[in-house]
Amino acid sequence: MFNPTDHPHRRFNPLIGEWVLVSPHRAKRPWQGQQEAVDNTPKPAHDPHCYLCAGNTRVNGEVNPDYKGTFVFQNDFAALMADTPDAPASTDPLFQNTSARGVSRVICFSPDHSKSLPEMDLPGLEQVVDTWCAQAEELGKTYPWVQVFENKGQAMGCSNPHPHGQVWANSFIPNSPAKEDVQQRAYHREHGRPMLLDYAEREAAAGERTVVGTEHWLAVVPYWASWPFETLLLPRFAVKRLEDLTKEQRADLAVAIKQLTIKYDNLFQTSFPYSMGWHGAPYAVDGQGDDEGNTAAPWQLHAHFYPPLLRSASVRKFMVGYEMLAEAQRDLTPEQAAAQLRALPDVHYLQRP
Amino acid sequence: MFNPTDHPHRRFNPLIGEWVLVSPHRAKRPWQGQQEAVDNTPKPAHDPHCYLCAGNTRVNGEVNPDYKGTFVFQNDFAALMADTPDAPASTDPLFQNTSARGVSRVICFSPDHSKSLPEMDLPGLEQVVDTWCAQAEELGKTYPWVQVFENKGQAMGCSNPHPHGQVWANSFIPNSPAKEDVQQRAYHREHGRPMLLDYAEREAAAGERTVVGTEHWLAVVPYWASWPFETLLLPRFAVKRLEDLTKEQRADLAVAIKQLTIKYDNLFQTSFPYSMGWHGAPYAVDGQGDDEGNTAAPWQLHAHFYPPLLRSASVRKFMVGYEMLAEAQRDLTPEQAAAQLRALPDVHYLQRP
Ligand SMILES: O=P(O)(O)O[C@H]1O[C@H](CO)[C@@H](O)[C@H](O)[C@H]1O
Ligand SMILES: O=P(O)(O)O[C@H]1O[C@H](CO)[C@@H](O)[C@H](O)[C@H]1O
Repeated sequence: MFNPTDHPHRRFNPLIGEWVLVSPHRAKRPWQGQQEAVDNTPKPAHDPHCYLCAGNTRVNGEVNPDYKGTFVFQNDFAALMADTPDAPASTDPLFQNTSARGVSRVICFSPDHSKSLPEMDLPGLEQVVDTWCAQAEELGKTYPWVQVFENKGQAMGCSNPHPHGQVWANSFIPNSPAKEDVQQRAYHREHGRPMLLDYAEREAAAGERTVVGTEHWLAVVPYWASWPFETLLLPRFAVKRLEDLTKEQRADLAVAIKQLTIKYDNLFQTSFPYSMGWHGAPYAVDGQGDDEGNTAAPWQLHAHFYPPLLRSASVRKFMVGYEMLAEAQRDLTPEQAAAQLRALPDVHYLQRP
Repeated sequence: MFNPTDHPHRRFNPLIGEWVLVSPHRAKRPWQGQQEAVDNTPKPAHDPHCYLCAGNTRVNGEVNPDYKGTFVFQNDFAALMADTPDAPASTDPLFQNTSARGVSRVICFSPDHSKSLPEMDLPGLEQVVDTWCAQAEELGKTYPWVQVFENKGQAMGCSNPHPHGQVWANSFIPNSPAKEDVQQRAYHREHGRPMLLDYAEREAAAGERTVVGTEHWLAVVPYWASWPFETLLLPRFAVKRLEDLTKEQRADLAVAIKQLTIKYDNLFQTSFPYSMGWHGAPYAVDGQGDDEGNTAAPWQLHAHFYPPLLRSASVRKFMVGYEMLAEAQRDLTPEQAAAQLRALPDVHYLQRP
């Protein structure tokens, strides 16, 4: 008889309309491949060579202010520019392009070079949340899509260890949110409720994929997770965008993020690498982000955490050959991953008495 | 005025129906992040500790035969099993799963532990091509999808340096080919010809994205490439699947693969990591792979090469935060990448007189 903890199967990701292959027994195979570099040496609170620390000079010669909380500045090597001219219309089905405008900013989480999100205190985390909300609100006035994200750790292409994230605003709706838009609209048409609000209720009731639950927030390893310890951070209430969060919901979000990232660091007793970011309703700007009249109703704000590690601080999951050419594949079930994370202490391994 | 070599823009990938963000000026930014381990020490032709070398014992105790050309065996840690029972039908839109059956095999390219594809001789490469074709033909009798691929190099999760690839056969059509199926069918309905046959003709005429052209094959950095030096290997003739290739087309394919992979190795004078694999028409098995009567007509066989390196043997492109949450982004234009590859010598840097 079929048993999802032993038998290979596929699960459907209703948020993007794609499948993932789950091969539960595969985590047992030996690993002789690449080992990730692990650097657990403590960092100083201020590093004179860091171009993100307060008072230091950046690559382009600008001097960072003596900032206290968060600090936002224009990315010195932005992938987008605000003033790119329009490309001539392309109608050739095989060679289609369109110009892209936007801005990229860097968000330093705090002046303290040594502390990433799980090690920061709650007031500091609340400032990070407020900064995310303010950036989304400001850039959403001009751009239909505002991508707030963090790449943490060398394994995730982060080139500076100072705790920071980024925000890239776009004159277009990128692929991933475009898929989520289609899927959430279809669900809403059929069921009359935001998909992810229904999903959060179902997960809270089930409990087996829950990692963290606070008063207003729920972090689960989603039923359709691709990455081994991927999580989806969901509000337990209807909300479209970051800036719509109340003061109380923001404070509770800081708690949820602290708990989740502490569990991540505790899993392999290392500063846990990941890429994380927020998806909220696109903005009705420039005739985009609003293709069904004034309805962002199907949308529910959420954050994705995509961490690459699989077995230890030095062994990651590679999404390569089969995954790139065919479909994402995972080596343990989401329920197994959630149970592992849930069982971990709520105190950071470096801050235990 | 808009200029695609300087201005950020998006290009459309008609094969999967998704966009990629091109930020041409971004390759100039300094890199202080992760350095890939580079191991250019020569390898022995036979390594007594390699579990893929002829005559050696594998992890599970089996002894490899004293093979001469290619050698195919069942993956000792297969992600799929041939006899997974059917999962009960799931109708819940938020928790959908289905059982998955298949087989995974390993294909050793030759007994020589020291030579990857670009260093092998043409008769050896022809054997690899013939083995790919034979595997596709055999497994296509039982499975609608047969994924032939190679992960090369530690950076691509390859855990054994012995030159080898894999084949995973599936009882389902995975995400990527499913998208290609939709897109190729739509193009064929509208234009009456296979999309990629039209595309190969257009690229051969344009020349600016061509890397290698032989009598029957063309390798281009596609107009919509995501990875910095990604290539698409295309037949210049209509053909649906690997096993339909004639002897002459196979021999010429060996030439094209040798030329392309030599250019790759020469680019950064290193054994160039990549994941590559073949996409051909799905097989009409089990009511799948054949959703418009007996028509594989829109399909054209092709191979994707996805190499991660960006600037040197040790600096790769990371598809992380923005890319995972929003959309793939590249730092140089496909035309620039193709020009770099095209200009490289046709003789392998280790085999020059
Ligand atoms: O099968 P291998 O070589 O052990 O494993 C490698 O290829 C597989 C198929 O792309 C991936 O799932 C693994 O993450 C990767 O490490
Ligand atoms: O902007 P950074 O931190 O220099 O660069 C990092 O994040 C970007 C956005 O996800 C990626 O495009 C880069 O590949 C990655 O190295």
